[in-house]
Order: sequence, then structure tokens, then C-alpha cells
Amino acid sequence: MAAEIVNPRSDSNTGADESADSASDTFFDPAFALHRGGKMAIQATVPVRDRDDLSLAYTPGVAKVCSAIAEQPELVHDYTWKSQVVAVVTDGTAVLGLGDIGPEASLPVMEGKAILFKQFGGVDAVPIALATTDADEIVETVVRLAPSFGGVNLEDISAPRCFEIERKLQERLDIPVFHDDQHGTAVVTLAALRNAATLTGRSLGQLRAVISGAGAAGVAIAKILIEAGIGDVAVCDRKGVVSVDRNDLTDVKREVAGFTNKGKLAGSLEDALDGADVFIGVSGGTVPEEAVAKMAENSLIFAMANPNPEIHPDVAQKYAAVVATGRSDYPNQINNVLAFPGIFAGALQVRASRITEGMKLAAAEALAAVVADELSADCVIPSPFDERVAPAVTSAVAAAARAEGVARR
Amino acid sequence: MAAEIVNPRSDSNTGADESADSASDTFFDPAFALHRGGKMAIQATVPVRDRDDLSLAYTPGVAKVCSAIAEQPELVHDYTWKSQVVAVVTDGTAVLGLGDIGPEASLPVMEGKAILFKQFGGVDAVPIALATTDADEIVETVVRLAPSFGGVNLEDISAPRCFEIERKLQERLDIPVFHDDQHGTAVVTLAALRNAATLTGRSLGQLRAVISGAGAAGVAIAKILIEAGIGDVAVCDRKGVVSVDRNDLTDVKREVAGFTNKGKLAGSLEDALDGADVFIGVSGGTVPEEAVAKMAENSLIFAMANPNPEIHPDVAQKYAAVVATGRSDYPNQINNVLAFPGIFAGALQVRASRITEGMKLAAAEALAAVVADELSADCVIPSPFDERVAPAVTSAVAAAARAEGVARR
Repeated sequence: MAAEIVNPRSDSNTGADESADSASDTFFDPAFALHRGGKMAIQATVPVRDRDDLSLAYTPGVAKVCSAIAEQPELVHDYTWKSQVVAVVTDGTAVLGLGDIGPEASLPVMEGKAILFKQFGGVDAVPIALATTDADEIVETVVRLAPSFGGVNLEDISAPRCFEIERKLQERLDIPVFHDDQHGTAVVTLAALRNAATLTGRSLGQLRAVISGAGAAGVAIAKILIEAGIGDVAVCDRKGVVSVDRNDLTDVKREVAGFTNKGKLAGSLEDALDGADVFIGVSGGTVPEEAVAKMAENSLIFAMANPNPEIHPDVAQKYAAVVATGRSDYPNQINNVLAFPGIFAGALQVRASRITEGMKLAAAEALAAVVADELSADCVIPSPFDERVAPAVTSAVAAAARAEGVARR
Repeated sequence: MAAEIVNPRSDSNTGADESADSASDTFFDPAFALHRGGKMAIQATVPVRDRDDLSLAYTPGVAKVCSAIAEQPELVHDYTWKSQVVAVVTDGTAVLGLGDIGPEASLPVMEGKAILFKQFGGVDAVPIALATTDADEIVETVVRLAPSFGGVNLEDISAPRCFEIERKLQERLDIPVFHDDQHGTAVVTLAALRNAATLTGRSLGQLRAVISGAGAAGVAIAKILIEAGIGDVAVCDRKGVVSVDRNDLTDVKREVAGFTNKGKLAGSLEDALDGADVFIGVSGGTVPEEAVAKMAENSLIFAMANPNPEIHPDVAQKYAAVVATGRSDYPNQINNVLAFPGIFAGALQVRASRITEGMKLAAAEALAAVVADELSADCVIPSPFDERVAPAVTSAVAAAARAEGVARR
């Protein structure tokens, strides 16, 4: 393959510039050039230049450190990288919009995630793509890996297994377990919605929301909106509103039906949108313009499917007071990178044993607060590159962990 | 604990210098200071500075790379870090001389190993300390992790489980699996013995060796010496020579008895040493001087127990033509770092599916050849900091992999 794609790893580190000697434009693609050799490396943070260095960093000096940890297990947090490294765990079943492409093919995404952890949160992260899709095997495997890591970020694992895996893992581990596709998305969505409500002079309690999509993201968003005090929220799957009257629901959807839809809506997504204040799309489907037109005045439209939003921003703009998408080329990008680096950095900083609902709510509030003084229809959420974000989320999450009693220092 | 040990991570990166404000000398220890915060970190090798960077390294650009790997699985080697990263896997049961101290307490050693991989071989490595000591569970876990890694270095797993784990893993995986405590030690020992034989005007075939220790290292050394053509070798455990006449042998020792001890020795280690040319100690016991005195003329004594060699070098020196130890403060240090970085670098370079006996022999020959022109009683093996070592081992191993048909490029 080496002949097909130009730019070896050594050159690709400077970015994706098209080099002059790009012999074959047919095969040249900046994404491939950038990815050659991978996107990450290990770095020693202590010197290993000579015998003296080696005798401290390795034998015999290292033995004292090992013995100390054997006697006082909590010292592992002080004298290894455990408390600053997160396992980014996937089984490759729900990768981006690509679906079940397997563990190897998911690795570029996991590496991307790992370098975002580093860049935005200063958190080390290691891609772990597993050769099993069995929920119990995934749980067992991660439990066995856990001594080496300070936290577990579950990634791109399909619903409904992702719910069970996260729950069982957190029950068995005393380090944070966080399924970013659920909670990262939920935190950023809540932050943006909070600011959008403020901008349009309403409280969350005055809003009725409709979520399109009852997968990982949809369920988590519904939960966090309820916790944050939304007026009402209905979740829709392909068959319409998830309600207690339906008899075709999975366990998770039955649970969702139990805590959502106070208004006892039934019928299709379009029916539910009639008079709704908020649309949140995490489904990838398409919503017809007629349905958008029937939403309440000052509606808030978050059409987050990528790359094709459920409602095109130009259409949404005609009806809504605020429009957000998952895309970087429109304003108000709902991007998980606004949440997960700071959430883990905060949790690791205080050695939290888990990431509680309170910590997620605190993260959303801190994230919303970053742009509180500069709110506009085009700015209800900070840019992913806003340098105020990670420190704000980190300290809010650390403080919330202390307040909730899950911090260990 | 933070108050007890000075030097936060940010200061410790410059080494183990005693800082002026080291308030409490009682608690100050350069090894602890160096280890604060761990010894390693993740580094992005591509830029993530702005929206354009993100759209190549992460969504949407990354999706093309994922799709390409899903279609052509071998592309994972080209476009991720898989083929340059090794999992350093332990269960913490045989850590240094400390024994079964558990996974967390083993982490400083695994991190040390990881940074040696990087420093000496340019190979990325990730510490994976497992919360299980069950051989089958270790095998299952590593098989599930394997999609993310280009190789597996087993480390500090106690015998006899280490033999079974390595064998089963290599049967199931198409990436190299290498138990360094066995094969790294064996390769370096063979290299040193080859040069010591040359120095004293003999071929390996003319030597009779006695190995003290029938654990991971002892068994592997016996195997590689036989493959390299040693005259004879007897392995001794605590009960004496491992021979087919004994009825107290484990499966592994019975196998060892089958391919060693052509001379049909019986009795104690001391009995076996009578007239022997070579002593190889990987046991940690003590050999009385009288037994050393009875070895053949021009004997070669490799007393590798750390920190206390089985025969003190000063005593060994009185009788032997060449003395080697595991210690850095005497000449001829048998140090695994001379082997594993180059062995994995070579195997990964050609994407070898395994590390064959031929690759190990080639590594030993290349390592021995580095100092072939400067042989002396104090120099039968290069220093760990000899910069010629890793390149020599790397290319010899890569060439051997090609010759043996296990290279995939």
C-alpha cells in the first residue's frame, strides 16, 4: 500500500498540506496522509539517558516504589500514570455514522478521541478496541484491565448493550465509567439548551421538547433534561412517541416511557412536534418542513445528525429562534469535545470513584456559563477551541464530585 | 500522601535532583520523587489546533480512513498506531524479586518497561496490569485486546502459568507474543555466552553448562542453548538436577528433562557443577565457593540473580575466565533491555506474525557481534547504552522474520 498514498508518517506531522511531490493525485487524500502511522505515540516523562537514570526509573530503584504500593495501594495514584490515563473502550459496533465496522476499523476514531483527550483536557488516553461484542465479555475484560487505568470512556458501542455495559461496569469498578455517546452529548445539549432558553426569555421548566432518536444519545439527553427540570420531553423512535401505551418497547425504552412524556403524547414524531418548543435530533432521519412549521413560536431546533442534520439549518432558520447542529460549518456546534475532556480531567483530579448525575449537570452549567455574557442566536454554546471551556468544566466537575461525596482527595 | 514526598510531577521531569526546598529529608527519596505522577504520557503526533485539523484527524475526515480499513483490514497497520504499539501485559505475580505483589503494585515496573521500549527501540508500549491470575482469563482478555496492538510483551507472570499463557496466546493471535522474562533473558545470555566461548577459544558445542533455576528464565535459556548447539546443559531446581529419573516434575520440567542433560547427571547443583564449563544462575540461591572451585578450567560464570548474584563476582573472578551478572555495577551486565526493544522493533517493522526461534537466535548473534571486535573478559556483551545495539538487533530480527516466512511485508 505504501506506494498508493504519499507522505510517510515523518512528513505528515506538519499537517495535511499537499506536498509538491504528491505524484498520484488519484490516491492523494489529506485524511489518509495525516493518518499514516497513526496519530499518537508514547512519551517518557522522565529521563533514561544513562545508568543512573535507569537505576531510578527501572531496577533497582523502581522496586521501592512497587513495594510501597503493595503496602499502601492508594499510592498507585501518586506514583504511576494510572490517575491520568483513561481507556477509550469500544467494540466497533456503532462507529460514527458507519455502524458496526469492527474493532480494527474503529481505531482511527479511538485514536482521534485519545488525542482530543490530551489536547483539550491534558488527559492521557489509550485506544482499546475489543474483539468481542458480547456485553458480559466486554464487562469482564474491562474489569480485568481496570488496575491500569484511572477511568473508562466507553465509545461507539451500540444500544441497547451500551446501557447494560456501562451500568455493570460502574457497579463493579471504583473508577469513573462514562459512555460519551450518551453523556457527553447530553451534557453539551443541555448546556446549549439552557443558554437558548435564557436567550429567548424562558426557563427550562417552560419548555416542551421532542427528541428524535431513542438510542444512546436520545435516552441520555432525555434523562439529563428531566434532571435539569425541563417542562416535558417526549422521545421518538422510528415508530413514533415512546409511551407507556406501546407494547413493542425494549427494556430501556420502557424505562424511558416511564419518566418522559408527562403530556401522554401518542402518534408520530410529526404529531409530537405540533406545538413543541424544542426539537432535538439524534436519529439521522429527516423531518419534513411542514412539521417544523407547526412547532411553537421561538422554537429551538437542535438537528445534530452528522453529516446530514434532520432539518437542514437553512430550513430550521426560517422557523426557529435558535438553531444548533453537529456540524462545524454552522453556528452552535454541539460537539462532545466540549465535555468529555474536562469531565474526565475533573473526575481524575479529585480521584472520583464515578461520574454522578450531579457532576454531569455541573459540567453542563459550567459549559453554558462560558458564553453567558455573549449569548446570541449564533452563540448558545462555546466553540470547541474556546480555551476557557476545559478549565471551567474541569473545576466544576471536581467541585461537584466533592459535593457529592465521590471524591477521594 | 502529597505532603510526605516532595517534587510534584511538573518538577520531577528534570530527573531526581534533590531540590533545595526538600523540607523533609526523612521522606525524600529520589526514586519516589522521580515516580511522582508516573513516567509516561500520550503525545499527539498530528496537530489538533483548529477546525481544519479536527476535521481531518477526527470527524468527518476520519470516517474515510475507518471505511477503508473496514474494506481492507490490513490497512489498519498503515493508518493507525497498531503496528508500532505493544501491550506490556502482567498479572503482577512475579514482579522483580518481589514476587506476587498484584497488578497495581507492578505498574511502576510496567511503565519502566514501556519507556525502555520507547527509548531503546522507538516502540510505543502501554502497561496493562490485569486483575486476574487465571491463565485462561488472561489469555481471553489479551485475545480481546489484540485488535489494538501490534504485539504483546508478557512480563513478570509467574511460572508455570507463563508458559501456558504464552503458548495459547501465540496459537490464537497473529501478532508477536513474547514473554520477556523467558526469551529476552535467554537471548542476552546466549549472546554473552557465545562471545565468552569465542574469547576462551571454544565453540558452544565444546561447553557443558549448568543452569540454576527451572523457572521462566532457566527453561528458556536451556532451550535456546540447545538450539544454539551447546555441548550439554543441565537444569537444576531446588531439588537438584532436573532429570528423567525424577518423579516429582511438573509438566514443564518433564519436558526440560527430555531435551537437556544428555550426560544423565543426577544429584545436587553442586554435583552437577563438578567439571562444568558454564554456570548460569537465574535462581536467587547461593552457590558455595567449594562448588565453584570444582568447575572446569576457563569456566564461564553468569550469576544473574539481582541484587545478590548466586556467586559473588569477587569470588567468581578467582576461578572463572569470564564473569557476568545482572548488575550494572560490574562488567558484563546481562540486561534484557539489550534484546526486547530491538526484537519487537524488528518484528513490527516487517509485521511478523510471531517471534520464531530463528528470530531469537538471530537477535543473539547480532547482539554478540556488536562487540566482536573488542572482546575481553570484561566485555562479552555490549553496555545497555551502546547505541549500536538496537539497530543491529532490529535488522537481524527483521531479516530472520523474512527468512522464516513470518514477515507480512
